[in-house]
Amino acid sequence: MSRRVAIIGVGMSEFGELWDKSLRDITLEAGMYSIFDAEISGSEIDAIIIGNMSAGRFTGQEHLGALAADMGGLGNIPAYSVEAACASGGAAVRHAYMAIKSGEHDAMMVLGCEKMSDVNQTEAMKTISVASDWEWEGLFGATFPALYAFIARRHMMEYGTTEEMLAQVAVKNHANAAHNPWAQFQRPVPIEFVMGSGMLADPIRVLHSSPISDGAAGLIMCDEKTAKKYTDTPIYIESSTQASDTLALHDRRDICTADAVVHSSKSALKKAGLKIEDIDVFELHDSFTISEIMLTEDVGIAEKGKGGQVVLDGLTEIGGQFPVNTSGGLKARGHPIGATGVAQIVELALQLRGDCEGRQVEGAEKGLAVNIGGTGATSIVHILGR
Amino acid sequence: MSRRVAIIGVGMSEFGELWDKSLRDITLEAGMYSIFDAEISGSEIDAIIIGNMSAGRFTGQEHLGALAADMGGLGNIPAYSVEAACASGGAAVRHAYMAIKSGEHDAMMVLGCEKMSDVNQTEAMKTISVASDWEWEGLFGATFPALYAFIARRHMMEYGTTEEMLAQVAVKNHANAAHNPWAQFQRPVPIEFVMGSGMLADPIRVLHSSPISDGAAGLIMCDEKTAKKYTDTPIYIESSTQASDTLALHDRRDICTADAVVHSSKSALKKAGLKIEDIDVFELHDSFTISEIMLTEDVGIAEKGKGGQVVLDGLTEIGGQFPVNTSGGLKARGHPIGATGVAQIVELALQLRGDCEGRQVEGAEKGLAVNIGGTGATSIVHILGR
Repeated sequence: MSRRVAIIGVGMSEFGELWDKSLRDITLEAGMYSIFDAEISGSEIDAIIIGNMSAGRFTGQEHLGALAADMGGLGNIPAYSVEAACASGGAAVRHAYMAIKSGEHDAMMVLGCEKMSDVNQTEAMKTISVASDWEWEGLFGATFPALYAFIARRHMMEYGTTEEMLAQVAVKNHANAAHNPWAQFQRPVPIEFVMGSGMLADPIRVLHSSPISDGAAGLIMCDEKTAKKYTDTPIYIESSTQASDTLALHDRRDICTADAVVHSSKSALKKAGLKIEDIDVFELHDSFTISEIMLTEDVGIAEKGKGGQVVLDGLTEIGGQFPVNTSGGLKARGHPIGATGVAQIVELALQLRGDCEGRQVEGAEKGLAVNIGGTGATSIVHILGR
Repeated sequence: MSRRVAIIGVGMSEFGELWDKSLRDITLEAGMYSIFDAEISGSEIDAIIIGNMSAGRFTGQEHLGALAADMGGLGNIPAYSVEAACASGGAAVRHAYMAIKSGEHDAMMVLGCEKMSDVNQTEAMKTISVASDWEWEGLFGATFPALYAFIARRHMMEYGTTEEMLAQVAVKNHANAAHNPWAQFQRPVPIEFVMGSGMLADPIRVLHSSPISDGAAGLIMCDEKTAKKYTDTPIYIESSTQASDTLALHDRRDICTADAVVHSSKSALKKAGLKIEDIDVFELHDSFTISEIMLTEDVGIAEKGKGGQVVLDGLTEIGGQFPVNTSGGLKARGHPIGATGVAQIVELALQLRGDCEGRQVEGAEKGLAVNIGGTGATSIVHILGR
């Protein structure tokens, strides 16, 4: 009974501190580029779904669905937003996947967006904390760098993970971003530079941390029949899964394992009938470099505790067996919260199409993205194939 | 290919200014009552979807999906929020409808919630304005009472609608709420009382306006097969539709017609194979009394311009041909923004089950709900049947 769901177009705004653009400007930009890329007419789009965390606090505007339909001139079509903290973008992709599979919609525009630089740094940090357990974490001053510092310190103690390993993730991702025209930081950084950067929450340094970013990403998703009208080479969503964990870090079974990621990546591979060795390219949610190390373990690229070592060994570089974050990841492409999960899918689609000049994984056929919310309370996994 | 979607359980927190309860308390309450009502085990629920507009601003907490899964002890199941301003609740119901229809989920908990009384009135009014076109309306001081005043004044000028008609909507809805144990205002009000209440934005008075409320509502939704395990009398969702209009009121073709409501209610009736005369009970989004009058026209109960007259004629009372807002509506049941669209479906399900003592529409078999966002930029329509 099931309909296959395809991606036929992708679009991005640049990521960065975009002082001269508004939330509506960048969202429209990503949407329009994805329409151009799909070579589809706007009149064929029959719904819009937006991933966004906190436009109400960052910009004073919610109701982004209706806004996008209005600004995009797409008429009276259904439109709304989904929110799952930093996994809001992934939630939007998963929503569109289900809506198309259900037969309610045939061709949807999926947008992820966040404009974070219109408020000051203190307000931005407070707003990001709405994704933590506010009554038990945020309220007591536990910012995200602090929460991830607990994870990193514990990982170092349990498994001998080193500061050099944490730093090497940033070095790799910056090197990848140097070839990504939409990335916020398009330049390599030497490891000494990372290891000497300012301390945020020991052992998390500025260059272990994703930046505050503005940006938007877009996809045109549709059922197989519609896809074949527009392209001979659609990218298919092979599986879409999601899982939850406790909102507060201190309630977890083990703070060095994101159980939601373990559950959702296992079930995604199973549903797609694939093994981890079958995946050619990965986008893993590296809000902090320790997060990429942990997720490398939780999806099965490395054994638990070896996530730091595989980075040093080059296994997750482009050219290695399991290339991770060819886009530059959250670390260097930037992390406009609601846009991130959609941007991950944009990167995988481009990789599978062979359109990633300078950072292409040769012959990539399968890609896997993990988009997490908070410290891993939400995990959304998508496997793409061509 | 299509799976039918049923409602097998409903639950509500009380609606009101709940000073001694937090957002998590009331959300959990609605969820637990809906589980009790369905007599289902929590372990059978395989996803949670939450309708909420702006918990980030009202309470400092987003990421409500993971929070609900965590607080409810429902384990690692997928969970996230949807937002479409005041139509967020309806969007959650529609999302669950599609997720179940797609085959990705079998039994879902749908929650709508908002805790609005934890901030002061000025901040609450500003936060509500995130649902308007902030750059063109909210920023210039056009609050929702002001925007609806434009509609009301124009409706009076075009069609001779009177202050008495506006007031009679409030009288009717308060009379209904007197029999609703969850309503914020469980008492009748005489028409003199409404017509003499304080002026907010001429001609909109305090008692033409829905209140600021705290509250949550819940549903257990599932596919037909699962439903039949738990009840012999499931309530089915016969159709679910959505449409958009311009975000800003001044961009509309005609501010006295909500085109999104016209489109979505027409297509909902068509998909369900029904005519307006077949519907026995209605929940229409009466954020202001002029809104109920306008929607009465836009769904086809009254001709355009006659929406005020039918209220005076008693057509929309319980016992009339087209009973509207038997729950008391947003006006008297209360309007905790994200909860409203779910609470509408709770009321219709209870009506179709015959569980509305004191306000029961005898023999009701079909119900229709319209949940709108902003001044009608989003409209979501559900038709329920037994």
